[in-house]
Amino acid sequence: MTVVRCCQLAPRVDDPGYSRELTVAAVRAGVEAGAGIIVLPELATSGYVFESHDEVASAALEADDEVFDAWSAAVRANRGVVVGGFAERVGGGAFCNSAVVVEGNGVRAVYRKTHLWDREHEWFVAGDALPPVVDTSAGRIGVAICYDLEFPEVTRHLAAAGAELIAVPTNWPLVDRPAGERPPEVVIAMAAARVNRVAIACCDRAGTERGQRWTEGSTIIAADGWPVAVAGAGDVTVSADIDLGRSRDKRLGDRNDALDDRRPALYSSARRGQGGTRL
Amino acid sequence: MTVVRCCQLAPRVDDPGYSRELTVAAVRAGVEAGAGIIVLPELATSGYVFESHDEVASAALEADDEVFDAWSAAVRANRGVVVGGFAERVGGGAFCNSAVVVEGNGVRAVYRKTHLWDREHEWFVAGDALPPVVDTSAGRIGVAICYDLEFPEVTRHLAAAGAELIAVPTNWPLVDRPAGERPPEVVIAMAAARVNRVAIACCDRAGTERGQRWTEGSTIIAADGWPVAVAGAGDVTVSADIDLGRSRDKRLGDRNDALDDRRPALYSSARRGQGGTRL
Repeated sequence: MTVVRCCQLAPRVDDPGYSRELTVAAVRAGVEAGAGIIVLPELATSGYVFESHDEVASAALEADDEVFDAWSAAVRANRGVVVGGFAERVGGGAFCNSAVVVEGNGVRAVYRKTHLWDREHEWFVAGDALPPVVDTSAGRIGVAICYDLEFPEVTRHLAAAGAELIAVPTNWPLVDRPAGERPPEVVIAMAAARVNRVAIACCDRAGTERGQRWTEGSTIIAADGWPVAVAGAGDVTVSADIDLGRSRDKRLGDRNDALDDRRPALYSSARRGQGGTRL
Repeated sequence: MTVVRCCQLAPRVDDPGYSRELTVAAVRAGVEAGAGIIVLPELATSGYVFESHDEVASAALEADDEVFDAWSAAVRANRGVVVGGFAERVGGGAFCNSAVVVEGNGVRAVYRKTHLWDREHEWFVAGDALPPVVDTSAGRIGVAICYDLEFPEVTRHLAAAGAELIAVPTNWPLVDRPAGERPPEVVIAMAAARVNRVAIACCDRAGTERGQRWTEGSTIIAADGWPVAVAGAGDVTVSADIDLGRSRDKRLGDRNDALDDRRPALYSSARRGQGGTRL
């Protein structure tokens, strides 16, 4: 069993130094609490609701930034892993909404969000590769960032690439939902977990930022699709013991398999515009 | 607005004549109740839990069977549509788990289930084309059958092909779920509706058949992903007024679109085994 922990932080978009320190403190606290995999929000080191390109530029980091060294140092002794979001400076005056996978020996992977939401189009360029699955000391971890999760192509890709856990740094803007319902993003994550038989840990952020209320919906979902830990409101953490081995077993009874039962040749022909039998 | 109605019937696998009549009566009752689109369960004309090939053979129909003529006659005056499942004789001693789309001028399409569940592998051959979207007098209707729904590739295909409603004839075997949760298949359907912005009507069946308990989980879901009508237990119907036009609008705010935001070139490269940025 692996303790997965989501830290529903409240970074300050007007104070990137504070936000970076907040992430380091959260990682250290997670290690002290015994977490093996620590997930931080999208754009955790910077905040989200930017007002200008200058603000993005002043908060942006490169993947060799010392804040990631601090995360790495914190998890080194326990062979833990951190997945968290940051504004990445990618050269040419451009920035990406990125996430890093960090373990004791440093940054293992950088993923640049491929599906940008709303005003992110003003600040960021989209990545040009789907997220990686990284074979870490704490398991095979796939990454998706916020709106990426609404593309079943992404979660399918990660599951097929062998992810045992999909870590989802996110900033979910609060949207209307019927009384008694979970946030719609959680429903989507539950379905993605179920159809792919893979655990998913969504780390939302807390608070209200420049008028934007966040959902505060961090949720850890087991490979059978059911939530096992749900955050409350505010700057809180949520943890769950996850058996990553369950994500490697795609069998559904004796004759079915969630991945082997796919019909890729049909899906390809559909993309070429061929349909079913019509009379 | 279109009245969509799911008829959660209890066919008798040992009495195909009874089952066929049951479907005709359900269609007529639906028309009388004002339904524009009537969805029947998977294998509605035959029942599901077969014991032998002979039993499948004796229940199997061809797409020109008179039962579909009776459905067609029933919906003709009101320009309605029926989608329902049947065991199809396809020649060479083979059978498919199929669904028809029927309107007043007859059978418009036949779909042969492409993802077979459990013992269906003993009785049926899988179809070799993804389901169609049929432009009917009651709207553009896509089809999926039961386990098909657990493949996001199928629902994505149907939405991209312009489905305003995905009609899902199903027989959901009852599975364990945590107290207070919906059936997992409904969670999957809700997510499929939400990420594709398309209405989905799942018509389950009722009762217990040769020891197999069914979920009795028929649910009609609007294009925003929230259920608008949920069947109770037993041989009941469930109806909802659905605005099919909402399924044509894939916009998410001013800068996003559920389908246009896909990155098909990336998904293709992922299938060729290329990953994200790893260090």
